[in-house]
Amino acid sequence: MIPEKMLEVLKNEGVVAIVTQGQEVHVVNTWNSYIKITEEGTLLIPAGSMNKTEENIKKKDKVLVTIGSREVEGFHSMGTGFLIKGTGEFSYEGEDYDIMKESFPWMRAVLRIKPSEIKQTL
Amino acid sequence: MIPEKMLEVLKNEGVVAIVTQGQEVHVVNTWNSYIKITEEGTLLIPAGSMNKTEENIKKKDKVLVTIGSREVEGFHSMGTGFLIKGTGEFSYEGEDYDIMKESFPWMRAVLRIKPSEIKQTL
Repeated sequence: MIPEKMLEVLKNEGVVAIVTQGQEVHVVNTWNSYIKITEEGTLLIPAGSMNKTEENIKKKDKVLVTIGSREVEGFHSMGTGFLIKGTGEFSYEGEDYDIMKESFPWMRAVLRIKPSEIKQTL
Repeated sequence: MIPEKMLEVLKNEGVVAIVTQGQEVHVVNTWNSYIKITEEGTLLIPAGSMNKTEENIKKKDKVLVTIGSREVEGFHSMGTGFLIKGTGEFSYEGEDYDIMKESFPWMRAVLRIKPSEIKQTL
């Protein structure tokens, strides 16, 4: 289940961090506005390069994602963030790929992240 | 040396990701506006809780940081980001602590990150 507040965050622009760990811990960024969420609650992220992220996921599919926005109210004041734990995989075809490719013609693959835990951190 | 464009990014609000790896890879966030940079180019970040980050750094001081802003021009279009590799340490007193404590009275420590590499990623 994707929390309502997280959907609200995604409506505001911001920097997303995607952390993977294969041989070496790596972090790559995307924008809030690039993320689409499927009916099943899978995060779809367009991959332009993200080569190191892809290599890492092949070795270990565990992914950490953070997103946030200063424009959405958090626990204490304006500004909230989410830490998403999940598993990732790159797809090069299929329905999710086609949907994303339409919005992001430059992408070479779609990174699909299935959240196992979503935690509001702020 | 801190790139001019990174200083420009820090003038815009956004979400910062701080990745550490001790026993378990962890990511925590802060805001662009919370970061101060010393004359020597050390990043100063106020730590409210960040307990897991602190534990991790005690075991391994390697830190990855990403910052970005959609409002600053990148390589291809609007929006740029930086990946900073460096080493981190928590300080509970001293000049850097005092400077930060004045702006962030809620902080319990200052996280000092010395960059070894700063790369513009977008």
